[in-house]
Formats: sequence, structure tokens, C-alpha cells
Amino acid sequence: MKEIISVIRINMVNATKKALVEAGIPGFTATGRVMGRGKGQVHFDILKGAEEGHPEAIALLGDAPRLVAKRILTVVVPDELCKTAIDTIIKTNQTGKPGDGKIFVTPITETIRVRTGEEGDTALN
Amino acid sequence: MKEIISVIRINMVNATKKALVEAGIPGFTATGRVMGRGKGQVHFDILKGAEEGHPEAIALLGDAPRLVAKRILTVVVPDELCKTAIDTIIKTNQTGKPGDGKIFVTPITETIRVRTGEEGDTALN
Amino acid sequence: MKEIISVIRINMVNATKKALVEAGIPGFTATGRVMGRGKGQVHFDILKGAEEGHPEAIALLGDAPRLVAKRILTVVVPDELCKTAIDTIIKTNQTGKPGDGKIFVTPITETIRVRTGEEGDTALN
Repeated sequence: MKEIISVIRINMVNATKKALVEAGIPGFTATGRVMGRGKGQVHFDILKGAEEGHPEAIALLGDAPRLVAKRILTVVVPDELCKTAIDTIIKTNQTGKPGDGKIFVTPITETIRVRTGEEGDTALN
Repeated sequence: MKEIISVIRINMVNATKKALVEAGIPGFTATGRVMGRGKGQVHFDILKGAEEGHPEAIALLGDAPRLVAKRILTVVVPDELCKTAIDTIIKTNQTGKPGDGKIFVTPITETIRVRTGEEGDTALN
Repeated sequence: MKEIISVIRINMVNATKKALVEAGIPGFTATGRVMGRGKGQVHFDILKGAEEGHPEAIALLGDAPRLVAKRILTVVVPDELCKTAIDTIIKTNQTGKPGDGKIFVTPITETIRVRTGEEGDTALN
């Protein structure tokens, strides 16, 4: 099994979950808030000011890569659905503009459904 | 070492942490909020309405699997305590009803205590 | 690639991110809130009272290890920068007092930039 961690735009979470269901991805899905950055090219005093809500600092950030509020959408899928899930996430989130997000894949060695004690891929549904 | 990620009912977090301590699990524990779903069998307009708090949408959800607020309880344990930790989490959270939650296990390749630079299982305590 | 998960003091997040950038770590960084504990040596009724804000319970906690609000700082880095990232996090956060935090390392098998579909280390930047 694989955990697919997508860091995507906040307003894309529902569309992405919907697309995953429509693509037949049966896995467990969870979402959370995160502050992320890509390339670290921003002066940290400016960044700190922007985080604290100072308009001058926010304006200075301009179009450079910066700390932005994102959502994390995590889905755990059987190995054979990993590619489908990734393709679905890309297709739904790709606008071609910076900030489309990133996808990370990490191994899951066991999954257990607490109600039954059931293990493996069937525990995902 | 293993990271054991439990997605459990909000009101079960304290009991689960207590049970882990009583079972002699010395590992690092952390909790966070999450919105999760199991099987994706709910129409997304209904789901969206329910997320926004519309009573009609919430009523329509009925007993079907749906997006629910859960807590994530993460514990990092030495390999030899992985089974004990999982059994403890199941025993504490198993009611036999849908929504008991899921457990995911993922490998941790290194653990370091920042204060001392110490690595490995002893850094967990 | 590796995901380096640091659980550090809340007031150390900005300094740590700054230090990682200055050390040339190009990876994706994200932060979140977490409640963590190290050794589970606190009576849970006290802990629960403290979590609920009862001053008597908080006082009883004294200097013992306890549930504390921390920040999680996650950075995904190419394998060859893993050691540099860890050393930087330790150097920035090590005061020698309990509560300096912990670092966990977990494998990332794939990273994809959504905008371009690009995979691998270059997708991190």
C-alpha cells in the first residue's frame, strides 16, 4: 500500500476528493491544514511580517515563491491504484501556474480496520 | 522503528493514550485533527452541504459512510513493540460499529533526540 | 528522498526554516500544530485537567515530561541532503533542556510537481 500526500490549493480539495471517488479509488482519505513553501527565496523578515498580516510585507512578497496556506489531502491506496490516484490528482489540480502543489508517495506496511481487526487492502474500504 | 498512525474517534484519544502508557509503550505520541472518510459512497453535493452545516444535507447522509471529524493519534515505537501498540489501540477503540477507525503503519528509518543528538530506540523515550 | 519530521518548540519554527534555507536545503517545507509527549509519566487525570485549562492540574504537572503544544516542521529533501538538514535542525534547536524536540526520518518513494508532472529530486524545488 502507498500513502499519497498531496499538498494542493485549499479550494481544490473537494474537487480532488470527488475525482478520486469517480476514478474508483476506494482508499481512506483525510485532509488537514498546512503552511508550505517551495523554493526558499524570500527574505524571512518579510515572510514573518506577512505571516503576521502586515500589508507592506504581504505586498513585498509579490509573485515570488512564498509561504502559503495549503491543504494536505492524504489518501492510502493499494499499490496497483497508486498511478491512477496520482494521475487523477494531477489532472484535477494542474493549471500550469506556480502553486499547483506537490505529491509525495510513502510506503504503508500495514493497514488495519479497528472494527474487525481485518488487515491489508480490504481494510482500506 | 515504526510510526503507527491511528485515525480514531475524537472522544477516544485520551483513553487510547492512557492504554498505550499502561501497555508500556514508551514512544513519542502526537495528536492532530483530521477529516476522514472510508468508502466514498456519498454524493458530493450532499457531502459539501453537510460540511457547510446545512441540516437537510446532514440528514440525507443518514448512516452511510461519510466525512467525519476524527483525531489522528501518532505513536512512534521500536519494532518489537509494534504489535503490542496495535493490539492496544484495537482493544481500546473496537466497539464493533462503523467508525471505529483505522490504523496505518509506516517505517521510520531514523529517530534523533534534539537535546542530546542521541539516535535510535533510546531517543524515543 | 527523505521526509524529515521535526517536532520542535513553537517559537523555533521560523529560525529553523531560516537555517534550512541558509544551509541550502531546497526542499518543500510545511508546518502544522501538534500536541506531543515524550515519556508517559504523568497521571492522566492531571493531564486531562491541564488540557482543559484547570490551573491546579497545570501546577501539578510541574517540570515532569508532559503533553505540550509543539510545531511539526516537515521538510522533504534529496537523500544526500538528509544529514545536512538534520544537523541544521539540531544546531538550531539544541538548548540542552528537555523539550528540545525530536526528529523522525521516513522514506519518500516519489515526489511529483503537479504543475509539470515532473518527478524526482528536481520536483522538490
